[in-house]
Amino acid sequence: MLKEWSKLQEPIAEELEIRLKKARLRLSALQTEVKEKKLPVLVLVEGWGTAGKGSLLGRIIQNIDPRFFKVVSMSAPTEEERRKPFLYRYFAQIPEAGKFCFLDSGWMDEITREPMPPALYESRIESVKRFERQLTDNGYLVMKFFLHISAKEQKKRIESLQKQKDTCWRVSKNDLWQNAHYESCLDSFDAYLKATNMPSAPWYIVDAKKQKWTELQVIETLTQGIEIALNNNAFSVPLLQNVFPLVRMPLLSEIPLNQVLEEAEYKKDLKQLQKRLGELHNRLYRKKVPVIIAYEGWDAAGKGGNIKRIAGALDARGYEVHPIASPEPHEKARHYLWRFWTRLPKTGHIAIFDRTWYGRVMVERIEGFCSENDWMRAYNEINEFEKELSDWGAVILKFWVQIDKDTQLERFREREDTPEKRWKITEEDWRNREKWDLYEEAVCEMLQKTSTTYAPWHILESVDKRYARIKALKIVIAELEKALE
Amino acid sequence: MLKEWSKLQEPIAEELEIRLKKARLRLSALQTEVKEKKLPVLVLVEGWGTAGKGSLLGRIIQNIDPRFFKVVSMSAPTEEERRKPFLYRYFAQIPEAGKFCFLDSGWMDEITREPMPPALYESRIESVKRFERQLTDNGYLVMKFFLHISAKEQKKRIESLQKQKDTCWRVSKNDLWQNAHYESCLDSFDAYLKATNMPSAPWYIVDAKKQKWTELQVIETLTQGIEIALNNNAFSVPLLQNVFPLVRMPLLSEIPLNQVLEEAEYKKDLKQLQKRLGELHNRLYRKKVPVIIAYEGWDAAGKGGNIKRIAGALDARGYEVHPIASPEPHEKARHYLWRFWTRLPKTGHIAIFDRTWYGRVMVERIEGFCSENDWMRAYNEINEFEKELSDWGAVILKFWVQIDKDTQLERFREREDTPEKRWKITEEDWRNREKWDLYEEAVCEMLQKTSTTYAPWHILESVDKRYARIKALKIVIAELEKALE
Repeated sequence: MLKEWSKLQEPIAEELEIRLKKARLRLSALQTEVKEKKLPVLVLVEGWGTAGKGSLLGRIIQNIDPRFFKVVSMSAPTEEERRKPFLYRYFAQIPEAGKFCFLDSGWMDEITREPMPPALYESRIESVKRFERQLTDNGYLVMKFFLHISAKEQKKRIESLQKQKDTCWRVSKNDLWQNAHYESCLDSFDAYLKATNMPSAPWYIVDAKKQKWTELQVIETLTQGIEIALNNNAFSVPLLQNVFPLVRMPLLSEIPLNQVLEEAEYKKDLKQLQKRLGELHNRLYRKKVPVIIAYEGWDAAGKGGNIKRIAGALDARGYEVHPIASPEPHEKARHYLWRFWTRLPKTGHIAIFDRTWYGRVMVERIEGFCSENDWMRAYNEINEFEKELSDWGAVILKFWVQIDKDTQLERFREREDTPEKRWKITEEDWRNREKWDLYEEAVCEMLQKTSTTYAPWHILESVDKRYARIKALKIVIAELEKALE
Repeated sequence: MLKEWSKLQEPIAEELEIRLKKARLRLSALQTEVKEKKLPVLVLVEGWGTAGKGSLLGRIIQNIDPRFFKVVSMSAPTEEERRKPFLYRYFAQIPEAGKFCFLDSGWMDEITREPMPPALYESRIESVKRFERQLTDNGYLVMKFFLHISAKEQKKRIESLQKQKDTCWRVSKNDLWQNAHYESCLDSFDAYLKATNMPSAPWYIVDAKKQKWTELQVIETLTQGIEIALNNNAFSVPLLQNVFPLVRMPLLSEIPLNQVLEEAEYKKDLKQLQKRLGELHNRLYRKKVPVIIAYEGWDAAGKGGNIKRIAGALDARGYEVHPIASPEPHEKARHYLWRFWTRLPKTGHIAIFDRTWYGRVMVERIEGFCSENDWMRAYNEINEFEKELSDWGAVILKFWVQIDKDTQLERFREREDTPEKRWKITEEDWRNREKWDLYEEAVCEMLQKTSTTYAPWHILESVDKRYARIKALKIVIAELEKALE
């Protein structure tokens, strides 16, 4: 792309001023619409060192109310960030609906800065394409700019910055390296732009030789993009086929629930297994393997007690339980996976989710909290999400805690009849229960479509809670042993 | 993709029948909406030999009124088709608005069937991606199915077909070859599917082991796709940057128009140049170089006379002049480039267009015959179109015939005052003249954005028509000589 690209003819000074004034006003006016129509706008500014990314952003944001944007300068990942999946720190920064986020260098810079093995590069490109597509599919406007200058121009700028004491710090080692290897950097930038130039999130190459002309190109393109996106509020996108290797799952109705575990055996097993899990946790910690344990299941199926038996075996400094309720307003204003991305464990840590991102294809589907297009897309989006985690090296354990409808009724009644348990049962539980069949259909579809080989579902038959707890412990232990081999 | 793909669990026979009945009815019901909302639907069916593409199509179309669809079976290109650009025969088959076109194998089959040099393969993939994106950007629904069977299943089918006299003809050499080289075919199919799996036109891999289950998967996916597309009627798409190498063009106002050519010199030059062009035409014909000459210009600028002087030099069997008026209803119902794709010359032939595809960014823009999003996208689409022609080996000559506003007025008046020329001037010409400034702006933008190195614009200063004619001849000759070197 970069290589085929030609500069547009720069307008004469007078015309440039007129257009610039108009474009700035237009951007300023559009921010209200962006806010009202709840459009989230992510602007990525990449480009050559000394191309003027920072000063460009400084000028653009002057047209926007500070409450409606943030500028994020991404530098090399910190030690902490290196212990999260590659996309974590970018996903964490996505804007909320109605706001702008300007990224001063992002994932492109990280991917193209240092050479990496081809297979890793391919996988990064795939991740980026999925990430950007998930954003645009979910209503984000993603605008990507690459500020382009020639080798000669870059050299001139570097020399001029180096001459002065108070600007020479602005020339980085990377700038010098780039200029000395301009042609090979050009190749690698070109390859990256080409590989990630998607119709829904295309690249715009900007002639960055002159400051005002740069600003004009960017603001005009940005406002144009915003106008188009505002036009298309709430449109549906084609569903992608969910192409991940799947493990066959039974229908819920096919699962026998007659397993029983005697108290004595339970106690013995529990003690032994918890001890073993504790040992494994230490080894995980040292080997820096991240673990994600996800619990879903019927109300009153026994998720809480089950989680307690897992957590009870773990060192408190190395795990966290995330109870997931309905999203807060600031969470609802972002991509639905954002609140899970930001809750991921560091390497060596365990995150246990009491209810999960699967809410999208269960409660959100059934209650109409998202559109049909949204939840139908989500199977693939979730498989992609878990693929990121798996590629990062995470062990992913997903439990569906299963009981039958009668058992639920029994437990609901028991809760109502036991004063200290009464807080556990609400009107909503009864309402959900009425939708049992709808949930059963949704759960079956979910199990079929998201039980991937790298993140399969495990069924915990929980009519006898003791049985379910021991089964969970055994599965966790087996999977961790596999990962630690 | 194919390699990661897992079969969905097939429903039990009873459920399958119920869903199939429902899906067929839904498809049948949707055809009315497709027609009313003028959605063009292109369904591409690819897959392994003996996977059942033909019989699948036979069953699908039973749900659609014959007036609303056509089935096209693509086999290897004919001798005639080989003399057109690769995409020609596919572009020619795109459905009109409100109708279905089912392609039994298409460009995938052509690209993956025979090994080709990597550079050619890359260029084919690029062409396909552009083609499909142009269709979806312009409101087409493009559904792509790949019918998948295992090597074992394919072998079984081949053997069973071969056993019977009246079916053994259905086993092609290619089927046998595929089965003998199943793994390497799988690799090449997988690579193709991955490379062309775009969010706006994704692939759907279909488990084609059982006939009814195959049908169900396809109809359910198809109806889902149609429903989503109907939801999104007339949405705008992000504008892609026009990344083609451009030649700088002057503003119309900067072009001097004071050139004059004396009658005597003109006659001498004309004779000489026409003779030379005639010679070149013969060599072109023998070397099978296709030539496309495109004329645009102001009303009364002298396009007709100019074309006459070119055509006058050519052998009538080797060229065609296409006068382009407003599109016919069947043309308007398709992608705006369709009527030009279908008018392309064969190799060795010359096509002269009196007005062209540039109507999109001139008259259609100014008169509002297409949306802003449409004409703004068109610069890139047109450059892509001409790139296809250039890659095919065509010489592309684009002339803008330039006069000033006063000269036009003079000629309009002369036409009105001369009985035998009066037919040449209409009310519309006067109306267009009132929009001179709008046209001038549009023409300048067009010249800037579509003058690529492989298909640059040439200005013919035509206040003196003789000068313009000689200049055109000289340019045509020079470019043809270059191509014949």
